[in-house]
Amino acid sequence: MKALVYHGPGRRSWQDVPDPVIEQPTDVIVRVDAVTICGTDLHILKGDVPEVEPGRILGHEAVGTVTAAGAAVRTVAPGDRVLVSCISACGTCRYCRDGSYGQCLGGGGWVLGHLIDGTQAEYVRVPFADNSTHRIPDGVTDEQMVMLADILPTSYEVGVLAGAVAPGDVVAIVGAGPIGLAAILTAKLFSPSHVVAIDVADSRLEAARKFGADIVVNSSREDPRAVVDAVSGDLGADVAMEAVGLPETFEQAVCLVRPGGRVPNIGVHGAPATLHLEQIWIKNLTITTGLVDTHSTPTLVRLVGNEQIDTTPMITHRFTMDEFERAYDVFGRAGETGALKVLLTPSTSRSSREGTRT
Amino acid sequence: MKALVYHGPGRRSWQDVPDPVIEQPTDVIVRVDAVTICGTDLHILKGDVPEVEPGRILGHEAVGTVTAAGAAVRTVAPGDRVLVSCISACGTCRYCRDGSYGQCLGGGGWVLGHLIDGTQAEYVRVPFADNSTHRIPDGVTDEQMVMLADILPTSYEVGVLAGAVAPGDVVAIVGAGPIGLAAILTAKLFSPSHVVAIDVADSRLEAARKFGADIVVNSSREDPRAVVDAVSGDLGADVAMEAVGLPETFEQAVCLVRPGGRVPNIGVHGAPATLHLEQIWIKNLTITTGLVDTHSTPTLVRLVGNEQIDTTPMITHRFTMDEFERAYDVFGRAGETGALKVLLTPSTSRSSREGTRT
Repeated sequence: MKALVYHGPGRRSWQDVPDPVIEQPTDVIVRVDAVTICGTDLHILKGDVPEVEPGRILGHEAVGTVTAAGAAVRTVAPGDRVLVSCISACGTCRYCRDGSYGQCLGGGGWVLGHLIDGTQAEYVRVPFADNSTHRIPDGVTDEQMVMLADILPTSYEVGVLAGAVAPGDVVAIVGAGPIGLAAILTAKLFSPSHVVAIDVADSRLEAARKFGADIVVNSSREDPRAVVDAVSGDLGADVAMEAVGLPETFEQAVCLVRPGGRVPNIGVHGAPATLHLEQIWIKNLTITTGLVDTHSTPTLVRLVGNEQIDTTPMITHRFTMDEFERAYDVFGRAGETGALKVLLTPSTSRSSREGTRT
Repeated sequence: MKALVYHGPGRRSWQDVPDPVIEQPTDVIVRVDAVTICGTDLHILKGDVPEVEPGRILGHEAVGTVTAAGAAVRTVAPGDRVLVSCISACGTCRYCRDGSYGQCLGGGGWVLGHLIDGTQAEYVRVPFADNSTHRIPDGVTDEQMVMLADILPTSYEVGVLAGAVAPGDVVAIVGAGPIGLAAILTAKLFSPSHVVAIDVADSRLEAARKFGADIVVNSSREDPRAVVDAVSGDLGADVAMEAVGLPETFEQAVCLVRPGGRVPNIGVHGAPATLHLEQIWIKNLTITTGLVDTHSTPTLVRLVGNEQIDTTPMITHRFTMDEFERAYDVFGRAGETGALKVLLTPSTSRSSREGTRT
């Protein structure tokens, strides 16, 4: 088959690789029907995630169709359309048993496109299939579902739920990329009074408005604290989320929150930040970090099925898989291209197993 | 009367000052029967708390007897023995109404010995008496009660409750001064499997053992992480509390916690710390800061009355108030003197209103 292979910092190619096979009785093989690229993949390509070894197939988000299942798999079967979660979960370790699947000690956690071959391929082996895939309800399209592999549960769990967004809250979201947009979308489920989206790119702030932001602030021209003060009685935001992954945006979120407020960090970081304990020791803040557990994925699948949330407007660019390198280029230059999420579907001629997409 | 007056960084004196009087109908005047010195007072004397103006009477911890009450005071009356809480609370502002008294916007919060004259005096005016004092149960002594003015609720709320200490937890406490000891004492209420106390002073670690630490680590000689790993299956502590107030002890607490664990910061800080987001973004940590609200004080009063907790062993040195300057000296050189908490009681001849202590 063909797959997108990492060859060390800055180097990748769409190339021939061996087809994946069932290795454990809990595995499934999934034919990838739709796949996207995550900001984390760009971090990997920058060399920020050194555990990723050259030769690794990237990608941890996909929807597809099961083509083979190991003998121990109980909940999905060949022919089933499934969401492949970015988190695999052994289901039995100390962390899985309390629902912290992201921290799985039994060979799961974030492994796809990280420690084992990932989803940016025509086929992918998914371990612990019963806890790592979700059947897609009839009538729900691949495009409606693919953002639930990672960014929707990430923003919902690590941002909205960890931040305990509540009715009437003023919610500031620093960063209006895909993660920030998903945070806006899922924060609105809790009826905050104001969602304030902050970014430096007007195109992203326009998208933020479409996803439900009540106020948008271009922080290159306007002071976000003044805007938040105006709607919070000069207290600050009840919740200030970091959705970028830079020290300065984290520090900005801490500056925006009111005493007693919450600062959930959603961004993937490559450098330390300064924590102004001399200012915040007295402020009763709660700062949280986290990799998604995907415990909310079944709920999110239901919300999509009910049409309570719709992430399809995040897909700004569509490619076939043989255009994977161009898709990376467009996504990597999001500032110029305006890309939010790029979607890749199979090329008209698959390279193996099947002549055409069914 | 006499009082301990701050005269700017490094300067204080026990001197004559005017007697306090009722200013608002919600005030009481309390004759101070026992008072202590807090590490925060040393911070003030170092100039770390610039809001404290020269001329201010210091102190925010005391027990005493009400000598006068404003017309609106309903719950205490002259003659009542009361605990004077470090937190005053208007009881009606946005924060008081959700129990966040420490963040009171109505003229309360931490004001005693900070923004208004404090308890290191023969008499003190206490604002919002109904929400800022607690009647002392019969049979409970001043010495049993005085630590409930600040350090017990601080360690309990900002450390143990914010850290969600639970049965079976491995709890690491960085710092075994009074705040750390109070954290050990109140963490034990939740039946953790191991309380690991970490300090650089053997005398404090001995005290930590007496207050219930299962394991003590002198971090100048031994690696606390190795000790925590040994009792946590190499995961790290479920809860790692900072009870010192230095960047390096905060950073140590973050290093000691397991994925999914909690880091409650109890210490008062004067400088920023480095937050290694590049390491912890993926670890599902919860970091909390806070000034005590004292919502737990009624519970702690009951626990002392029931003899479920006893803080009197923290009192290592006793003075009369005319020895206040010496008491500061002994407390300020705790490393040499071994002082944990110093207790001051009235001099045999009070300077005003009464000739001798009743």
